[in-house]
Amino acid sequence: MRTVNGWAAQAPGSALAPWRFERRELRPTDVALRVTHAGVCFTDLEHVRPEPGHERPDIFPLVPGHEIVGEVVAVGSAVTGFQVGDPVCVGNIVDSCGVCEACRNGDQEFCAEFPTLTYGGRDRRDGSLTQGGFSDEYVADQAFVYRRPEGLDPAGTAPLMCAGITTWVPLRRWEVGPGQTVGIIGLGGLGHVAVKLATALGAEVVGFTTSPDKAKDMLELGADDVVVSTDAEAMAAQRGRFDFILDTVPRAHDLSPYLTALRFDRTLCTLGIVPELSFTPQTLRFGRKRLAGAGSGGITDTREMLDFCATHDLTATVEVLPVAEVDTALDRLAAGDVRYRFVLDLTS
Amino acid sequence: MRTVNGWAAQAPGSALAPWRFERRELRPTDVALRVTHAGVCFTDLEHVRPEPGHERPDIFPLVPGHEIVGEVVAVGSAVTGFQVGDPVCVGNIVDSCGVCEACRNGDQEFCAEFPTLTYGGRDRRDGSLTQGGFSDEYVADQAFVYRRPEGLDPAGTAPLMCAGITTWVPLRRWEVGPGQTVGIIGLGGLGHVAVKLATALGAEVVGFTTSPDKAKDMLELGADDVVVSTDAEAMAAQRGRFDFILDTVPRAHDLSPYLTALRFDRTLCTLGIVPELSFTPQTLRFGRKRLAGAGSGGITDTREMLDFCATHDLTATVEVLPVAEVDTALDRLAAGDVRYRFVLDLTS
Repeated sequence: MRTVNGWAAQAPGSALAPWRFERRELRPTDVALRVTHAGVCFTDLEHVRPEPGHERPDIFPLVPGHEIVGEVVAVGSAVTGFQVGDPVCVGNIVDSCGVCEACRNGDQEFCAEFPTLTYGGRDRRDGSLTQGGFSDEYVADQAFVYRRPEGLDPAGTAPLMCAGITTWVPLRRWEVGPGQTVGIIGLGGLGHVAVKLATALGAEVVGFTTSPDKAKDMLELGADDVVVSTDAEAMAAQRGRFDFILDTVPRAHDLSPYLTALRFDRTLCTLGIVPELSFTPQTLRFGRKRLAGAGSGGITDTREMLDFCATHDLTATVEVLPVAEVDTALDRLAAGDVRYRFVLDLTS
Repeated sequence: MRTVNGWAAQAPGSALAPWRFERRELRPTDVALRVTHAGVCFTDLEHVRPEPGHERPDIFPLVPGHEIVGEVVAVGSAVTGFQVGDPVCVGNIVDSCGVCEACRNGDQEFCAEFPTLTYGGRDRRDGSLTQGGFSDEYVADQAFVYRRPEGLDPAGTAPLMCAGITTWVPLRRWEVGPGQTVGIIGLGGLGHVAVKLATALGAEVVGFTTSPDKAKDMLELGADDVVVSTDAEAMAAQRGRFDFILDTVPRAHDLSPYLTALRFDRTLCTLGIVPELSFTPQTLRFGRKRLAGAGSGGITDTREMLDFCATHDLTATVEVLPVAEVDTALDRLAAGDVRYRFVLDLTS
C-alpha cells in the first residue's frame, strides 16, 4: 500500500485535520500523481458539513477534493498514455461500469450503476472507500486521468475538472455558439466558469445574479449583460430572450421566471444539487419549453473541454490558499465569500 | 347578429342556466355549425367553479365547451372547404396571430400572442368575448373548423378535440410507436384517450393510477399493464422502464418517481394545468432526463389526429347526458365520478 498524507474530517461536521492513510498499490492501468492543487467545491462543503438529516457517517474519515491537479509520480505496468513527470488532472469521477448505454455512449457521468466518485465512493474492484485530492498523492485508473495543458495556470486549471466540465457539457449539448443568447444563473464557482466558456464559444452571455455587486465583475469576466434577479421589472423584461439558460444555483428557487425568459422551444438546464425544485407548469407549457439536468462529464467531453480551455487560455478565477487553511476556505465558501473558487496549494 | 341559445354561468360559481346571446354575423371565411355534442372538460369546471382567488368575473356570463361536434349550417362568402350539411368539429383554439415562429411552424397552440380560446377568449378582430359550445350554434373561421370523420360516433368524437389532440401531440412529438414502452399517468378524460392513442400507435402502454379499481378498465381500453402509483414497491420496480411518460393529472404531485421510471435520456411531458409542480433535481439529472410541457395542438396536428382516429375507429369512452344536466356532469366530474368523459347532447 502507498502511505499518503491528507486532510480529513473524522466525522460529519468535524474540522479537517492532517490524516495519514493508505492508497492501493498501483494496478496495471493505474497512475499515481503528486497533487499540487485541489479546488474547493460546494459539494466538499456539503460532504464534510452536511445539513442535519443528511449525514453519511459511513464515508468517514473523509478526505474531500475532486478538482485535482498534479504530476505523475508512478505508473502501472500496462499504462501507455502517461510517464512520470507528466502534468495531469483528475475530476470528480474515477471509474464507471463501462458497459451500460451511457458508458458505451461516452457519457460516463450518467453510468446506470452510478459512476465511482473521486471521494466518498466505493472502488468497483475492492470495495474500499475512495479518498479525495486534499492529499499529497492520488491514484486512479489512466482512463480517468487527463493530460493537463502546460500553458494554463495549474491553480486555475483545478476547478475546470468539476466547475468547468459540469458547465461545458450542457453548453455543448445545447450547441451554444455565435448568434445565440445564453443566460447563466448564479455567478459562483460554476457560474463564473460558465460565463467564460459561453463567451469563448461565441455566444451573447447574460448573467443572472442576486448580488448587484457581482455585476461589474461579471462584465469583466466576459458577460455582455447582467440581470439582478431580485428586480422583478428587469426579470419581466427578459421574456422570450434566451436560446438556452444554465442554472448553476445550489439552492432551491422558483424556475418559472427563467422558463418565461426562454424563447419558443428552448431548454433550461439545472445543475444545482438541492432537495427540490419547483415551477409553474404553464411557464413550461407556453412556448414549449424544456427542463433538463446535467452534471459532470464523460472522458471525451473532459478532454475536449481541456483542449478548448488551452486554446482559449481559459481558467477559473481563483484564490489560492495553503492546504492548512482548508477550514478557512470552507468557512468563507459557506458564507459566499469567494471570488470565484478557492484552490488549495498542496505543496505549501 | 345571430341569436343563439346556450347554457351559461352568469358569475363565477353560479350554476349553468339557459341564456340567449348573440354571435357575430359570418365573416367571409367563417363557418356556422349547429352543435350536436360538446364534451365536458376539466377546464370547463375550473372556469365556472374557480378556486378561491382564481375567479375571472370579466369573462362572465360564460358559456363553456370546447370539444364541439356538429354540422355546418351556413358558410361565409369566401369559404371554400365546407358546405352546409358537412359534419365538422371545433376544438379549444379558434384563432392565432398567424405570423409568430410557432404559428408559422404550424404550432398554433403555442402562438406567441396566445391563441384565441374557444370560450373566455377575446376575438382578435372585434375584441368581443368568445362563448363556447354548450350552445346550439358556434361560429368560427374555417381554418379552425375540422372535417369530422363520418364513421366515428359523434359523441365519442367530441373529446378528441381537446383530450385527444392534447395527448396526440406529445405522443407524436416524442415519436411513440412500436418497440417503445410508454407510461400514461392519470386515467381520466385525457389519460384514457392517451392509452387508446398510444396503443393504436403500436407502443407497449402502461397506465399509472391512484385508483386500483380503474386497473381493469384500463387493461380493457388497451393498456398492457397498470401500476397503482400509491404502491411504493410497485413504483420502485418501474425504474428505468419507460421511453416516454405522459402526465395527464390535473393536480399538483411529485414528479420524481416518474422521472426515476424513465430510461436514460428520455422525456416526461406534463399536461396538467396546476399552480406548481415540483421534483427532486437529482431524479432529472441522473440519467439525463427531460421535463417538457404541451397543450392542445395546431391545425395540421388536429387533422392528422382525426384521420388517425378514423383509420383506427378510435373515440373517447363517454357518458352522454342531455345538456340540461350539465350541472350534474360538472358535479360528478368534480367528484371524479366519470368514465371517462361526459358529453352533452345539445339536441335533446
